[in-house]
Amino acid sequence: MTIKVGIYGATGYTGYELIRLLMRHPAAEIVFATSESYAGQRLSDLYACPYDLSLVGMAGAPVAGADVVFLCLPHTASIEPVKKVRAAGVKAIDLSADFRLADPTVYEQWYKTPHTAPELLSEAVYGLPELYRDAIREADLVANPGCYPTSILLALYPLVANDLLTDRRIIVDAKSGVSGAGRKPSPATHFVTANENISPYNVGHSHRHISEMEQELNRAGGGPYRVTFSPHLLPVSRGILSTLYVTVQKGWGIEQLAALYRKTYAGERFVHLLPLGKLANLHYVTDTNRCAISLTLADGDGELIVCAAIDNLLKGASGQAVQNMNLMFGLDEAAGLE
Amino acid sequence: MTIKVGIYGATGYTGYELIRLLMRHPAAEIVFATSESYAGQRLSDLYACPYDLSLVGMAGAPVAGADVVFLCLPHTASIEPVKKVRAAGVKAIDLSADFRLADPTVYEQWYKTPHTAPELLSEAVYGLPELYRDAIREADLVANPGCYPTSILLALYPLVANDLLTDRRIIVDAKSGVSGAGRKPSPATHFVTANENISPYNVGHSHRHISEMEQELNRAGGGPYRVTFSPHLLPVSRGILSTLYVTVQKGWGIEQLAALYRKTYAGERFVHLLPLGKLANLHYVTDTNRCAISLTLADGDGELIVCAAIDNLLKGASGQAVQNMNLMFGLDEAAGLE
Amino acid sequence: MTIKVGIYGATGYTGYELIRLLMRHPAAEIVFATSESYAGQRLSDLYACPYDLSLVGMAGAPVAGADVVFLCLPHTASIEPVKKVRAAGVKAIDLSADFRLADPTVYEQWYKTPHTAPELLSEAVYGLPELYRDAIREADLVANPGCYPTSILLALYPLVANDLLTDRRIIVDAKSGVSGAGRKPSPATHFVTANENISPYNVGHSHRHISEMEQELNRAGGGPYRVTFSPHLLPVSRGILSTLYVTVQKGWGIEQLAALYRKTYAGERFVHLLPLGKLANLHYVTDTNRCAISLTLADGDGELIVCAAIDNLLKGASGQAVQNMNLMFGLDEAAGLE
Amino acid sequence: MTIKVGIYGATGYTGYELIRLLMRHPAAEIVFATSESYAGQRLSDLYACPYDLSLVGMAGAPVAGADVVFLCLPHTASIEPVKKVRAAGVKAIDLSADFRLADPTVYEQWYKTPHTAPELLSEAVYGLPELYRDAIREADLVANPGCYPTSILLALYPLVANDLLTDRRIIVDAKSGVSGAGRKPSPATHFVTANENISPYNVGHSHRHISEMEQELNRAGGGPYRVTFSPHLLPVSRGILSTLYVTVQKGWGIEQLAALYRKTYAGERFVHLLPLGKLANLHYVTDTNRCAISLTLADGDGELIVCAAIDNLLKGASGQAVQNMNLMFGLDEAAGLE
Repeated sequence: MTIKVGIYGATGYTGYELIRLLMRHPAAEIVFATSESYAGQRLSDLYACPYDLSLVGMAGAPVAGADVVFLCLPHTASIEPVKKVRAAGVKAIDLSADFRLADPTVYEQWYKTPHTAPELLSEAVYGLPELYRDAIREADLVANPGCYPTSILLALYPLVANDLLTDRRIIVDAKSGVSGAGRKPSPATHFVTANENISPYNVGHSHRHISEMEQELNRAGGGPYRVTFSPHLLPVSRGILSTLYVTVQKGWGIEQLAALYRKTYAGERFVHLLPLGKLANLHYVTDTNRCAISLTLADGDGELIVCAAIDNLLKGASGQAVQNMNLMFGLDEAAGLE
Repeated sequence: MTIKVGIYGATGYTGYELIRLLMRHPAAEIVFATSESYAGQRLSDLYACPYDLSLVGMAGAPVAGADVVFLCLPHTASIEPVKKVRAAGVKAIDLSADFRLADPTVYEQWYKTPHTAPELLSEAVYGLPELYRDAIREADLVANPGCYPTSILLALYPLVANDLLTDRRIIVDAKSGVSGAGRKPSPATHFVTANENISPYNVGHSHRHISEMEQELNRAGGGPYRVTFSPHLLPVSRGILSTLYVTVQKGWGIEQLAALYRKTYAGERFVHLLPLGKLANLHYVTDTNRCAISLTLADGDGELIVCAAIDNLLKGASGQAVQNMNLMFGLDEAAGLE
Repeated sequence: MTIKVGIYGATGYTGYELIRLLMRHPAAEIVFATSESYAGQRLSDLYACPYDLSLVGMAGAPVAGADVVFLCLPHTASIEPVKKVRAAGVKAIDLSADFRLADPTVYEQWYKTPHTAPELLSEAVYGLPELYRDAIREADLVANPGCYPTSILLALYPLVANDLLTDRRIIVDAKSGVSGAGRKPSPATHFVTANENISPYNVGHSHRHISEMEQELNRAGGGPYRVTFSPHLLPVSRGILSTLYVTVQKGWGIEQLAALYRKTYAGERFVHLLPLGKLANLHYVTDTNRCAISLTLADGDGELIVCAAIDNLLKGASGQAVQNMNLMFGLDEAAGLE
Repeated sequence: MTIKVGIYGATGYTGYELIRLLMRHPAAEIVFATSESYAGQRLSDLYACPYDLSLVGMAGAPVAGADVVFLCLPHTASIEPVKKVRAAGVKAIDLSADFRLADPTVYEQWYKTPHTAPELLSEAVYGLPELYRDAIREADLVANPGCYPTSILLALYPLVANDLLTDRRIIVDAKSGVSGAGRKPSPATHFVTANENISPYNVGHSHRHISEMEQELNRAGGGPYRVTFSPHLLPVSRGILSTLYVTVQKGWGIEQLAALYRKTYAGERFVHLLPLGKLANLHYVTDTNRCAISLTLADGDGELIVCAAIDNLLKGASGQAVQNMNLMFGLDEAAGLE
């Protein structure tokens, strides 16, 4: 079987990473790749890469000839294109935030613009396979999770699904590589600014990914939760490390907690609980679709520190998108990802 | 006035940084610098530097000819040398942890060895000038604070001195450059290990600097506090950023909190509260003796995030040591530091 | 077909990279992996990796059960192990320099120790597939080229094979990532030393790889050549960029030269001549087995600058070793490498 | 004595570095600092810095109140402002290339625009103090050298002044930190592009700094020379390392050459010849105004490799500009630079 794939927004980091993955995928064929800025050019001329793809404008993309379209567009810019793809009867995997929030009023509150396709929100499945595998298999529209939320939800899911947190306030101190800020040059992504530095930004309760984290934590159980979230820009190209501070019920020892995580993630090929004593870092996951998780209990009263690492462009974006595609088309979930 | 200075342990990062500072200090003259490994060599042959100092073994150092000795030795290795320096009637500034803890049983608990000079502990002054300036002026033995504690104590002092924290549990997520791990090569400090990575270590309640943080927070007021501390190794050469999560009394707005910090640190030349909206990062402080602090209130219920940045080798070690020397000898506190 | 593979020296960077490649190779199975320091441990416990291999001591390795053994041992330490592997009738791919030089007196001159298996030198084939593909197919002992020589020989081969150089002196200014210095911690590989720096070392005519470059250039034609070689340590984890300065016969334009390269490397899957106007850099090749080459003619009189980039651990070591294995066993040359 | 200083173009890297230097200079006072983009703002609000300067537009700068104006403007944009400064009878130190070339036709050839103030070229002194100290002392207009040329001229001056080169072709392989590319964000200066990379650019005989190198080498003696120049962008924030390949007259041994350099640079406070066996690297010079030089003779036939390192923002730009100012005003040449 060959899956015909279209890509909207092929020249950003996530679009490009998707192409890299799909080019070596055993069952996918890229039938178009769009770029508004570089329409008419070849990808191999633009970037240091061997991918000899012609870029077309979005308006001229042959959507109907595709089995699935990946949308790698900025937040708020993906709604109309998704509508068009779905109207053509083609499956869509949206890497933006536009279909992640079930409630359009929450969307408007965080993204400062009304949602113009609320009717599609009920159709959209949140594309975190470890939580929603069965629904993804049936989905026509998958909302691929954000990079930070992926690390945080996988880190906490066993706890919240079993309602083990005694404090609903969750503190997340997250660190991301610069590719997370996108390919567009800016003062913040200038080498001299990011190098030999670490910069917090949007700390507190202001980063838009919080809406998605809280929605999914509350769905998983035991909420409502409140996430205090402090992202930091790291001087590395790729990778996210999230360090989470939670309080679990007294009486749970570290061995028990580890057993719970192992049981929850039994059979998961992309979640890797580290042996006790090892702590997650970026090197466990760079260039892989895995999430590495470590647990540390600070004392006997339930003070737990969870560290979770992912590659922001893979499990945090394009790798997870391919994992979702694999599920939607009945392929081996790990096809093209190992 | 010329202050005759001796340095024990001149070839590690803090010893070397101290030499760099003292070489351009208007009133200091280095009379000896020791190294057990490189005795007999010249510093300028060892390192890429213009400091043409002869290194001598500790045993042969002319202590009595010095007005003050800086000790840049590993933890637990500084006790006997400090005794010797003090026995010679010479002032000492100890950069190790050996004289920071007032209670020798706490020292033994964290450093796993009995303290062999408990009689000197009462004489020792904790060398954080912003808290203990007057005592430092009179001191013969200054225990220079640890790098992490310096950033954390300056970040929290206005809050604890005014007993504003409603939760005694304080969460500190700290990130340090690799020079903090010392000059000795190890797998963790290998370029390929540290590069493109961020590695948590000793997370929870296990890092030895916690003893010092808790002692000083409790002294300042409102305790007893418990610090959950997660240090991370950053792929930068120098700098520490500590992100702190605390809960302050309801009713305190961000402007009021900022006013409290400004008032507390009025006249301090090395503490810099950033304007609201700006967040501390390493570039504010690299190669300076300053601590940059930013405040963010996540909500109206007292959820406060404090970010504090220092250069770990300056305000976190050798710069602060020189600041202490300046105070001990009645010099301008900032001499050689601007 | 399954090829049973043994690895001597599995825990260094090249051994580890080899394991990474072989684990996803469609036709290879690792039957043993040795480490003297970590015998008895599992690789997945040692490093941040999912490769659950047991390490054994070299003495206990079941050589006879392997079809081929890769030797990832230090220079001069590989001779006796290769003898043993060959005595067992097993094919060997040696990643050290021990079998690269045809003349044992040249070996002794550069490596300062007599060659104790000169009888095997005539059997050994220099494992640069683009030059010696047919011989590699028949070989029982392949001497895998050095990282620097690989980049330099591929950069120059079309010129020397056609005797186009009018000046036999060749200047090579090469830059290598820190993994090229090996995994053993040392002052030079300490993060703080390598970071924010670039360090020349062994400049002139002193680096041992020169023996190999000159031997192979002379074999290719038009010599004898003399290579002036200045390696530099770069603050990156992996990758080599070699910038070469040569003088070609007058009358050769850049288009003609490019045509010659394209013709010479027609059909080569791992050599990539960049379009005129683009210059090779590390990002063209990182994590690939490719060599990217660019040509720039400085004037009409034959002043040519060739830039060549490879990943030092792949085309410069373990990738090329797998390419050689593929040839030796009649597999697709690119198996496991794309 | 207080020197009243104006700065045109204060917000770029060289302008900012100049401010940093002048703020701690014992005899300088900044009377204005211009920025077209940020006029009306304060420098301390723009950048992470304690320099509380108000920025004004160039048109409103009180030039006549200054003793000297530093111009940190882009190439070709400095000509008219210099005219204006000189017309006001104020001394000028121009950090652009606009007054470095004595011959306006050469300027036009390399900078693709006619020189509109050729009458000022004869007045301009090339501001390399080690070569033109006396002229700089008398100068009203100093053309501060380019960063690359500074490293190359200091590296070669003893050889060309004594006419020791037997081959007039000089090969320079240079590596620069990203601050050399300016503060304006671009794809090339994006962290993800520059990180884990080294990129050659403008290789051959095309970089505009070549005009300046050749002019000055020819002035020094023994020419005409032809410089083949290959700059590379390094993943570091600051620093230049130039590796030069030249051929010296037979019979000159390395000790003799070193003696020649020591003699040539006797008394120079910012040129540092390394002991034989040590090679220049960035750490010798970062954050200093020094140039570190190392010599290696590859053989007895005169094949010499010179490595020269400078901090591109100090000895390569603003540090040297201050050194020039010190000379022009009869101050200690090193004032504010140590």
